[in-house]
Amino acid sequence: MKRAEISRATLGRIPQYLKYLKTVFPATDNISATILAKELGLGEVQVRKDLAAVSGAGRPKTGYRVDDLILSLERFLNDGEDSRVVIVGAGKLGRALLDYGGFGEYGLDITAAFDIAVTKPEFSHIGKPIFPMADFENFCRDHRVKIGILTVPSSQAQEVCDRMVKAGIRALWCFAPCVLRTPENVLVQYENMALSLAFLNKKFKG
Amino acid sequence: MKRAEISRATLGRIPQYLKYLKTVFPATDNISATILAKELGLGEVQVRKDLAAVSGAGRPKTGYRVDDLILSLERFLNDGEDSRVVIVGAGKLGRALLDYGGFGEYGLDITAAFDIAVTKPEFSHIGKPIFPMADFENFCRDHRVKIGILTVPSSQAQEVCDRMVKAGIRALWCFAPCVLRTPENVLVQYENMALSLAFLNKKFKG
Repeated sequence: MKRAEISRATLGRIPQYLKYLKTVFPATDNISATILAKELGLGEVQVRKDLAAVSGAGRPKTGYRVDDLILSLERFLNDGEDSRVVIVGAGKLGRALLDYGGFGEYGLDITAAFDIAVTKPEFSHIGKPIFPMADFENFCRDHRVKIGILTVPSSQAQEVCDRMVKAGIRALWCFAPCVLRTPENVLVQYENMALSLAFLNKKFKG
Repeated sequence: MKRAEISRATLGRIPQYLKYLKTVFPATDNISATILAKELGLGEVQVRKDLAAVSGAGRPKTGYRVDDLILSLERFLNDGEDSRVVIVGAGKLGRALLDYGGFGEYGLDITAAFDIAVTKPEFSHIGKPIFPMADFENFCRDHRVKIGILTVPSSQAQEVCDRMVKAGIRALWCFAPCVLRTPENVLVQYENMALSLAFLNKKFKG
C-alpha cells in the first residue's frame, strides 16, 4: 500500500507518540487526541492529522485504541528489511553516525561501514563492523542494502557514489559538500553541515 | 545595519557565487545576472533576488561590478569576531565537526572544543585545541564566544546548556535528541540526524 507523503515534522513526532503511549499501556485501553495533545504539548488538530497519516482516525468518544496505535506507529517506523543502511567513509563523521544511538527510535539500523583505508574487518566502539571497500558490492547484494550514507571527502564522492549505485543503492544521504550525478531512479538527500551552522549564525545576528 | 532575514537557500548559494566570481576576477570588471545565472545553472530572477539580499542591485546594461560584489559577499559571510564558535562534547561527532573543513566557506571557524573527559589541553588532528570543561567559562568570556555547538549525550545536555548560557552563549546548535530549556534571548537550532535519515527512508519508499 502506498501512503501519502508524510512531512518531516510529522515523522519527527512519531517517536514521541510511541514513547508516551508505551508509558500508559497496558493500563489504558483507549486514548483521545485531546489527552495526547495535552500530554505532549501539541495542538489537537496536529495530533489528529499526524495519527491519521500513519494509522487511522480515532473513534468519536472512545478515541484511539492504545494497542492498535502502538502497533501502527511501530509498523510505520519499522517497515522491514529494506531499511538496512550502510556507510561509506569511516572517518570521524562516519564512525560517529555508525555508533549513534538515535536511529533506533525510527526503526533504522546502520548495519556496517566501509572504508578504503580499512584492510581487514574491524569493529567500532559499540561493535559494529567496518569492512574494506573490497567487500562492499558483495555485502550490499547479500543484504539487499538500498540506503547508503556517503561520508567521504568531496574529491572521492562521485566515484564512491557510482559504486554505491552500481551495487544497488537507491537512496543516498550525502555529507560531502558537492553535487552528485546519479541516475533518475536514485534519490539523493544532501546534508550541508556548514550551511546549518551558517544559517544559525545569520538567524542569531538578524 | 539590520538586514532582512535571509533564507537558508539563498545563504547556501552565496559560496557558489563567490567561488565563481573569483574565477573571473580580475579579468572581468562587470557581470550581469544573466551570465551568472547561466554559468551557475540558476534562474535569473533567483540570482537577482539573492544578490539584492546581500549586496545591492545591479545596474541596467553593465550589471554588477565584480570587485564590489566579491567584497559584499565576503563581508556578508564573514562579519567579524562574533562568529567565534565553540563545541562542548568532544566525542566522535564533536571532533568530526571541529575538524570539518566546510565551515570556512561561510566565514565560520570553530575555535575550540571542550570535554568533561579531557583533563589537560590536547589537539585535534588538524591542530585545534580541545580543553577541559574547567576552562570553558574563562575561554568564552575572553573570546566573547556567542555561538556554541552541543554534542554531548541527551542526559547531560540541559546541564551543559545552562553552563553555556551562563558563559554568554546566545545561539546554540544542539545535536542531542532532546528539548532544551533556555531563556528567551537564546536561539536554539536542533539537528536531528536520526530524523534526517528516517525522512530519506520514507521519501525513498514513498
